[in-house]
Amino acid sequence: MERSDAGEGAGLLKPGRGRRRAEDVRNATLTTAAELLLAEGVQGLTFSKVAARAGVSKMTLYKWWPSPGALAFDAYYDTFKDTLAFPDTGDIRRDLTTQLHSFVELLNRNGSVIAGIIGAAQGDSDLAEALSTHYVTQRRRLAVERLTRAREAGQIREGVDLETIVDQLWGAAYHRLLMPAQPLTTDFTDQLIANLFQGLAPDSPHPAT
Amino acid sequence: MERSDAGEGAGLLKPGRGRRRAEDVRNATLTTAAELLLAEGVQGLTFSKVAARAGVSKMTLYKWWPSPGALAFDAYYDTFKDTLAFPDTGDIRRDLTTQLHSFVELLNRNGSVIAGIIGAAQGDSDLAEALSTHYVTQRRRLAVERLTRAREAGQIREGVDLETIVDQLWGAAYHRLLMPAQPLTTDFTDQLIANLFQGLAPDSPHPAT
Repeated sequence: MERSDAGEGAGLLKPGRGRRRAEDVRNATLTTAAELLLAEGVQGLTFSKVAARAGVSKMTLYKWWPSPGALAFDAYYDTFKDTLAFPDTGDIRRDLTTQLHSFVELLNRNGSVIAGIIGAAQGDSDLAEALSTHYVTQRRRLAVERLTRAREAGQIREGVDLETIVDQLWGAAYHRLLMPAQPLTTDFTDQLIANLFQGLAPDSPHPAT
Repeated sequence: MERSDAGEGAGLLKPGRGRRRAEDVRNATLTTAAELLLAEGVQGLTFSKVAARAGVSKMTLYKWWPSPGALAFDAYYDTFKDTLAFPDTGDIRRDLTTQLHSFVELLNRNGSVIAGIIGAAQGDSDLAEALSTHYVTQRRRLAVERLTRAREAGQIREGVDLETIVDQLWGAAYHRLLMPAQPLTTDFTDQLIANLFQGLAPDSPHPAT
């Protein structure tokens, strides 16, 4: 992501100079918003603060995002999309293991901020809507895309509702973050994968790997 | 749970008159606290309010609970322990199905209050500690007890970490409550159970029931 210390005020990020400039402004805004979000939490993120720090006009922010929450979750999604990318080596268990290890590291590194963001969305319907639309739905879509390819490759049986797998892997990890009682480790996520792929029944033919 | 409209002030619930009276006071306090919690959320629950409404002294509350949060989560646990009890018919899939249907109904009936309680615990370390100790740990223990009997009965294979099943059933449902994007229904929890017991692999020998 490209950064610019100069804002619209300095004449370098004027919107309306064509496509490239608008992208620069958008990237600078997302970077600034993500920094604010991780430093001060979602309730510290206002259009005024982001506008001042990123050197963009508040008018631009209002035009591009329906609310500060929407900007916050777009920024959050954008910041971690590489860390949380879904690899595709052709082996779904291996790829889920890799991705979930990255996810656990992220939750352990930024856990209290992430928990605070999700916590703030409870009881604030605008923020809840922004979380759902601008983050949860986007992340679920990426996961289901990878799981769909696995099903097409014959690694997941037909008839499984792939959306439910999202809740039993990433949702299970969020559960340990938000309602803590047991450790949130890579051993834990490895076991989540084993439970699903090997199954819980005693006569399962799929040994844990 | 026994209720009394008369408080200590009316001379009916004086503590120190022996074991039965102390139990009455405790039950009246838990009922009052649960009502306050469901009506006003966890941040509206103070020792002063509970003392006044339940007719008990604040001194008694301080003696029995380390914090208002601890009282709140004890009250919450107590109020829903019958609704969320784990049946034991000897068939673990059937019993999990029954219990998860009750759980989903509870989440759909009181969803925004429950989400608000969990949300408030994020970023408030005292409340987070109370949630973990007085609610999450207690509920996990009950679930793992039932799962342990299922393993002993040969319905769950050896080697499965039973704690992880808690995250993949109840945790998965909390995920849809707290990070909404997909419906929280009994069809959903039935699929969670099928995924785990049947397994995701294509050549699984365990047909969904």
